[in-house]
Amino acid sequence: MATNLFQFQLNATDGNARAGVFSTPHGDLQTPVFAPVGTQATVKALTPLQLEQLGATLVLSNTYHLYLRPGADLVAEMGGLHRFMQWPHPMLTDSGGFQVFSLAEMRKVDDDGVTFKSHIDGSTHRFTPEKAIAIEEKLGADIIMAFDECAEPHDRVYVERAMQRTHAWAERCLRAQTRPDQALFGIVQGGIFPDLREHSARAIAGMGFAGHAIGGLSVGEGKPEMYAMIEVVNAILPADKPRYLMGVGTVEDLLNGIARGVDIFDCVLPTRLARHQAAMTRTGRLNLLNAVHAHDPRPIDEHCGCYTCRTFTRAYLRHLIVAKEMLAATLVSIHNLYTLVELAKEARRAIFEGRFERFAAEILQNME
Amino acid sequence: MATNLFQFQLNATDGNARAGVFSTPHGDLQTPVFAPVGTQATVKALTPLQLEQLGATLVLSNTYHLYLRPGADLVAEMGGLHRFMQWPHPMLTDSGGFQVFSLAEMRKVDDDGVTFKSHIDGSTHRFTPEKAIAIEEKLGADIIMAFDECAEPHDRVYVERAMQRTHAWAERCLRAQTRPDQALFGIVQGGIFPDLREHSARAIAGMGFAGHAIGGLSVGEGKPEMYAMIEVVNAILPADKPRYLMGVGTVEDLLNGIARGVDIFDCVLPTRLARHQAAMTRTGRLNLLNAVHAHDPRPIDEHCGCYTCRTFTRAYLRHLIVAKEMLAATLVSIHNLYTLVELAKEARRAIFEGRFERFAAEILQNME
Repeated sequence: MATNLFQFQLNATDGNARAGVFSTPHGDLQTPVFAPVGTQATVKALTPLQLEQLGATLVLSNTYHLYLRPGADLVAEMGGLHRFMQWPHPMLTDSGGFQVFSLAEMRKVDDDGVTFKSHIDGSTHRFTPEKAIAIEEKLGADIIMAFDECAEPHDRVYVERAMQRTHAWAERCLRAQTRPDQALFGIVQGGIFPDLREHSARAIAGMGFAGHAIGGLSVGEGKPEMYAMIEVVNAILPADKPRYLMGVGTVEDLLNGIARGVDIFDCVLPTRLARHQAAMTRTGRLNLLNAVHAHDPRPIDEHCGCYTCRTFTRAYLRHLIVAKEMLAATLVSIHNLYTLVELAKEARRAIFEGRFERFAAEILQNME
Repeated sequence: MATNLFQFQLNATDGNARAGVFSTPHGDLQTPVFAPVGTQATVKALTPLQLEQLGATLVLSNTYHLYLRPGADLVAEMGGLHRFMQWPHPMLTDSGGFQVFSLAEMRKVDDDGVTFKSHIDGSTHRFTPEKAIAIEEKLGADIIMAFDECAEPHDRVYVERAMQRTHAWAERCLRAQTRPDQALFGIVQGGIFPDLREHSARAIAGMGFAGHAIGGLSVGEGKPEMYAMIEVVNAILPADKPRYLMGVGTVEDLLNGIARGVDIFDCVLPTRLARHQAAMTRTGRLNLLNAVHAHDPRPIDEHCGCYTCRTFTRAYLRHLIVAKEMLAATLVSIHNLYTLVELAKEARRAIFEGRFERFAAEILQNME
């Protein structure tokens, strides 16, 4: 369903790296793309205007959080997530699966769904594939995710069982979808086991989703394992649909993901690090609380084009952090998000120009 | 000193209300004007760009806070306060007097100055008139304030002694000033006692300051007392210099101050209320946490032109507050500051058009 509304045009490839355009009811997404996370219908400490100005095109929000607060019905009543948070461009919601397994208390999984207690007030709730899709339809994002079970990636027995459940739930999500204006993505699971990943990729790819996601990575496994899994999966996923690597967002991982054919990324890391005084740059991280910055008149990154770097010194940013001023989180979030959003844009240009491998290698070489 | 750089042109009067232009090295200030407060070299939760966009023209910062953290020398090393916090328009610093008397621990006043302990780390410091001016010269604001003693307004014996000290310190501040590019304002004290206020206004007015401030009000006295004191003082202060009512910032007080000939206002109230879920409007305050707003699709104020009101619903703002999202403070601060900044601008137009009294009366009538 709905695939016609959501054309994915592949404009260029360079090795396995891809540059494309994914059309949505709220505008075209140029890929590769990095999506800032707005967990509770706000990218923390930023206005939608600031998000636009730093170049963001896709924003993710979390179904689990919005379901608990303020509730999907309220968001629907306010005209859906785009209007509620005033982000008029493409949006994506996850299915709540990952949060139920990482945040909620006392969860109980069965083949039909998951019962869990809210991390906010301890109240009991139940998600099933059908319920997750119903909530995502109320929220109204352009890209919605199938409900999946995210297992600890090294426990083969659990990983395999969770994968089978994920496949069964994926079918149910497809059947449950009623809105034609949302692209439903299936999620590949399988932990760090190449044969399970291969099996999962084939199963999910065969179901007719509008796009595909790689879930269950960046959850504690090593980087070589993560990159190997991306390769296994992307060799199977069809080239003519977008590929989304969930929850991944460092300079290094973006470049490695793009090199292996990933189109879409999201992560809370840039904004979370920003609230903990850490600036992300192409050469590594900077702890802005460090006394070495106290008298430093330079911006975080002299080569960066973000508002923060064009405007403020490290000395000022450190002062804001020491003085516990909220503006610190805003300014460092702008910088960190710009770093990844802009990296994806430059990667896209490099792919068009057939120089992605060199582009990525040069940056990775300079990483601390 | 320095008065030539700081021309004050009175363009229109309407009753006692005045519309003027105060020229500073960082641009002309159109008065009446409301100045947002950036205590620690940042108006809390707002970027300078957001301040510009909401129409702010003058920003105040606090000498006491900046002296303690990050230190006046660091600010000077970074090119002064304008460059440090990247506010390229007119700025004002207080002298630290009010904060020493309201925030610092274990203060000891003598005729030479004040010894106090930092509210941050308990370290001991001493301010004298000469020290305060030296710090303000390092900070480099366009308008700087004389060092004064702010007494509990009802204690006549203390008020009178503090007033005499304030006058002696005012003379010392004038002698201590060395920078020609800063307008030094003297501060009238005298508590709630008309004869003391009269005496203080005459004394301060005779010293040759570039502008005059009314201090020691809005600190616990009643509104009739405050308005009466403004009348007593402004009848004496020369008309050809700007008048600044310190620490005052509600819709009601701005209108009443302008009606009595005040040109400049500042207050932390708009941003402080914003961080406590209260929106200021021309008809009263709105507690946005109130459940009545949960499903309200209206903006805070349908007649308001600020970014927040043009963009977001009360339902969304309440959600941000309930979810403890930083963006709430940003968006409500934008609204509250706009309310006062815009009120002063509209008052100015009303003065030019000879209809200030009606303008003020209509708003005051509709206040809750």
